[in-house]
Amino acid sequence: MSTQIISVLVEDEAGSLTRMSGMFSRRGINIHSLTVSPSEKEGMSRMTIVTTGDEREIEKIEKQLNKLIEVVKVNILDKNTSVVRDLCLLKVYADKENRAEVLEIANAFKSNIVDISIRTITLEITADPLDIDRFVETMKNFGIKELFRTGVTAISRDIEKKSGG
Amino acid sequence: MSTQIISVLVEDEAGSLTRMSGMFSRRGINIHSLTVSPSEKEGMSRMTIVTTGDEREIEKIEKQLNKLIEVVKVNILDKNTSVVRDLCLLKVYADKENRAEVLEIANAFKSNIVDISIRTITLEITADPLDIDRFVETMKNFGIKELFRTGVTAISRDIEKKSGG
Repeated sequence: MSTQIISVLVEDEAGSLTRMSGMFSRRGINIHSLTVSPSEKEGMSRMTIVTTGDEREIEKIEKQLNKLIEVVKVNILDKNTSVVRDLCLLKVYADKENRAEVLEIANAFKSNIVDISIRTITLEITADPLDIDRFVETMKNFGIKELFRTGVTAISRDIEKKSGG
Repeated sequence: MSTQIISVLVEDEAGSLTRMSGMFSRRGINIHSLTVSPSEKEGMSRMTIVTTGDEREIEKIEKQLNKLIEVVKVNILDKNTSVVRDLCLLKVYADKENRAEVLEIANAFKSNIVDISIRTITLEITADPLDIDRFVETMKNFGIKELFRTGVTAISRDIEKKSGG
């Protein structure tokens, strides 16, 4: 069982998300995170699904997805040749006692301050999901008031062969 | 009709995404973007849904969502008092003729270079969705090979009243 990233290009149609998530839940597949948003192609959206499963299960999912009429393309992303990113907005408790410490750690993680109040700091971080996990774990020491993550998105790296080389 | 951001805290249960998206499609509500991922609470996920609709429609959706047993909390986010963010990974065509220009624009938008090849540049940008729209529009001039957006996530700003003030 390992984490798998599935990228699906779908035609924008009412109910396509329902059909896709229905397929996942019927097969008892747990969706860790899901993002759906407009793609580079007019009238098409891209879904990025993070799930766990072995190779055989993922192959089955790929086949099932390809059977849905609104599905244009399915890609199983290889983490070794992809850029994987997650975005997290996190509101952490910070007052005059520990504000400096929270800001120091926020800075070390290269997160941005997006809001500050007398009792809280809101931070934004875009990074590899595992780095965000570590960031969240560290911030738990101060108390997390709210946490929002978009879920993973990923893009393949362009690996080009030299022509004639 | 205006853009609305709905934030929903749900218990992790197989099929909850299907039930929620089913509710949206039955009502003919178009989901512009959707993100689902773990929240600050153990065993609970947070969904952020961007849709269009007038106030009355959104109120109805809120009521319907609250009826679903796995739904713990529904928030309609006010854009004026929230931090709204989207993450975009974009692969744009860039060769020796226009690489410098692409990088100049990328820099102006404060996007990060995450990958570069002889024919393409892959950029990452975290910003307000409207800023990302402008970024994407500008990059279209060079040709976009691939585009991935996570969809919007948002967190309310802490507005605190002075005590006794």
